[in-house]
Amino acid sequence: MVSQTTIKQLQRIVGRDQCFFNIEERLTHASDASSFRELPKAVIRPQNTAQVAEILRVCHRNRIPVVFRGSGTGYTGGAVPPQGGFVIDMGCLNRILEIDTHLRIGIVEPMVINAEFQAEAKKYNLFYPPDPASLKSASLGGNVAENSGGPRCVKYGVTRDYVRGLEFVTMEGSIVQTGCLADHFDDITDLTALLISSEGTLGGITKLALSLAPLPKHTALILGLFGSMAQAAAVIADMVQTGVTPSAMEFMDAATLQAVSTYSGRHFSEDVQAVVLFEVDGVTEAETYVQYEKVVEVCQKQQAIGIQIADTFAEKERLWEIRRNISPALRTISPKKINEDVTVPRSKIPVLVGRIVEIARKYQVKIVTFGHAGDGNIHVNIMTDEIKTQEFQRAQKAVDAVFNATIEESGVLSGEHGIGLAKKKWIPLQLSKENQTWQKRLKKAFDPGDLMNPGKIF
Amino acid sequence: MVSQTTIKQLQRIVGRDQCFFNIEERLTHASDASSFRELPKAVIRPQNTAQVAEILRVCHRNRIPVVFRGSGTGYTGGAVPPQGGFVIDMGCLNRILEIDTHLRIGIVEPMVINAEFQAEAKKYNLFYPPDPASLKSASLGGNVAENSGGPRCVKYGVTRDYVRGLEFVTMEGSIVQTGCLADHFDDITDLTALLISSEGTLGGITKLALSLAPLPKHTALILGLFGSMAQAAAVIADMVQTGVTPSAMEFMDAATLQAVSTYSGRHFSEDVQAVVLFEVDGVTEAETYVQYEKVVEVCQKQQAIGIQIADTFAEKERLWEIRRNISPALRTISPKKINEDVTVPRSKIPVLVGRIVEIARKYQVKIVTFGHAGDGNIHVNIMTDEIKTQEFQRAQKAVDAVFNATIEESGVLSGEHGIGLAKKKWIPLQLSKENQTWQKRLKKAFDPGDLMNPGKIF
Repeated sequence: MVSQTTIKQLQRIVGRDQCFFNIEERLTHASDASSFRELPKAVIRPQNTAQVAEILRVCHRNRIPVVFRGSGTGYTGGAVPPQGGFVIDMGCLNRILEIDTHLRIGIVEPMVINAEFQAEAKKYNLFYPPDPASLKSASLGGNVAENSGGPRCVKYGVTRDYVRGLEFVTMEGSIVQTGCLADHFDDITDLTALLISSEGTLGGITKLALSLAPLPKHTALILGLFGSMAQAAAVIADMVQTGVTPSAMEFMDAATLQAVSTYSGRHFSEDVQAVVLFEVDGVTEAETYVQYEKVVEVCQKQQAIGIQIADTFAEKERLWEIRRNISPALRTISPKKINEDVTVPRSKIPVLVGRIVEIARKYQVKIVTFGHAGDGNIHVNIMTDEIKTQEFQRAQKAVDAVFNATIEESGVLSGEHGIGLAKKKWIPLQLSKENQTWQKRLKKAFDPGDLMNPGKIF
Repeated sequence: MVSQTTIKQLQRIVGRDQCFFNIEERLTHASDASSFRELPKAVIRPQNTAQVAEILRVCHRNRIPVVFRGSGTGYTGGAVPPQGGFVIDMGCLNRILEIDTHLRIGIVEPMVINAEFQAEAKKYNLFYPPDPASLKSASLGGNVAENSGGPRCVKYGVTRDYVRGLEFVTMEGSIVQTGCLADHFDDITDLTALLISSEGTLGGITKLALSLAPLPKHTALILGLFGSMAQAAAVIADMVQTGVTPSAMEFMDAATLQAVSTYSGRHFSEDVQAVVLFEVDGVTEAETYVQYEKVVEVCQKQQAIGIQIADTFAEKERLWEIRRNISPALRTISPKKINEDVTVPRSKIPVLVGRIVEIARKYQVKIVTFGHAGDGNIHVNIMTDEIKTQEFQRAQKAVDAVFNATIEESGVLSGEHGIGLAKKKWIPLQLSKENQTWQKRLKKAFDPGDLMNPGKIF
């Protein structure tokens, strides 16, 4: 139970109508896109940074653990409340404060939705590249907390590369501003970088200064169809060697194509065992054309069965649809999909994909693989059903095997989903004891009482 | 004095011939490229990471402060020994361990010289872009500790953007590995980022994994001559708006041109009050040509007095020489140059340059200004002579005024030289109390006894 004094203090800070203790609000804030669940004691909705600081001071004094919540689209339980704790719902901090076209920078509050920010930037001929699949619902604050990626990151880099500064509030209620509006500001210990991908365990982000790139004016989309995954992997490797970096390079295996085909009615001939979707872009048409030619050349060299090219907006949409249909298509195959986003060095993609086929065979489970080839981020989907107890157990063993294989191939547990609660137990596979020790020391320096999103990551 | 027990322990670790207590070695390790100076008690030269860890354990037990030393090319006293402390000279950790062309990564020890690494990468058709002016003597470890920039950073980013992982040793002697060889690895608190630009205050870097870019095969160099600094600044602003990013965009004011002219005999007509040197590059010729055309168009739009174009290697060298001659040319003007590398948002360059002209007038000192326009990093050189006491005092007041103007124009104290000892006193201008508090907490978490490069930054 929350004490009456605490309730009064919180109501004084944010107003009666922004403190929720009823079961409905608590239930809707109990989980994220993962299957973890914990009922918070309260949901508090601050209106501004000063209120966030005041709320944290009250919680700090009363040793109440907290979690910051954006859109709740995370896959690893990052926004699931700590036991006996509060959810600080950032929903009201949702304004785009400024777009500065000279500095190519956007100042935003954390609950601005990724796609909305992209759309706003576009009005100024600017471009915010990080594009996680959840971009229409995920918040920029959440993107930063998890360091989200997306198809375009192969060329443009991940969220981390776009954060020029931020404002965060510590558990003790200090408001700290980092970075600055200058283009080159790094000469001291980098608190900005520290907050990125720390999954809400060090501070609550209340403002972001995000870099914007020039808007590419021309794009071309090329779909390469291949007779084997090995050829698709070879094309990706060859592409990297040319020095031309596509703005997207997405691969899909035969199982993925089959699912998409069943779902959308778009058929591929039987000899197509893998496809790679390339996008190239540029500020000028000439620059784009040069890259497009290179992609076609590389596909031909690896004996592509077919090369489909989209020039018009409608044709491009038709090709992107194949990629976008994957998620809904997979949902029709089986009730439960265990979705992991492991990452290996690009050159190891063919090896890991091969090992995943073996793992599927060994544990008799269906595994669908697709991903961002550019940065080695592979989405491994183990299709199963929790009701079928034995199959579900085999699926969980398969997850273990996939993580082990990933680490053996010099990879990491997560490309962009984070660790949260979901991947905690595999952390020792990835990080040395020393690395863990110093990360924990850092956490302790920021939050000695372990009240800010406790129990996550470690 | 160093105790006999400590001497014996150190000699056992690195061998008798790698421990130096004689005055000659201590004197040559007393300073860097700044004017700060402090005689170390000893100079120790480890051969590998394990020895670094053992040395630190001995120093930690005996509360002996230490500083890590690379090439000693820093301008802010970062490598100047702490009082009563030891210099750990990293000179022997100088091997390029691996260049992986598939992963586009180089694994190096910290004392590999920047230019040597660039040359090695080139053999594999790869490119390490960060290019501080000191690249022929500065170490990669030092570049990372200070987060060095350079002309190419406008297009390619600074050192920070190229560090994929590192190994460091804490004051207690823990060896910590961070990052990994995967292309997208960031989902946990980022110890890599923490070490970058921390100026040797958190850990000693013993290994680096650095990203490499595809080697641009074509470049073009364009020198725009302008009748006023305002026009030069306008060209820079226009260039940014086009979305085409040159691989270098260096500006020089009239005072700089005059110095270069006297030094090298290369004359500019009197109406030339500022020049901008543009380099564009690309993997293909077509891509490079498109950018080249855009630069010329933008220069013409701003009524350039002249546009000089270099196509051949020899012509390019001739143009780059103008830029490279600045430093030696300035040395001939006056015995002492106070060299500061402030940074402002690109759009504020004309304002700050104007204010610097005012400051020079007010304090009756000669100030020469040039810099990397792309990232707003302006090198402000106050030409003076320590023997002329009154002028030198005015020069120091001018430095103060430049820093104040920089902060007022939303800038920062340093682009790439770091804070070290030289800029400590201006830190409160730039960082809020809260930011300083949390940076100090971080330092305390890593080095509670304040033994690792103490007294720097704060």
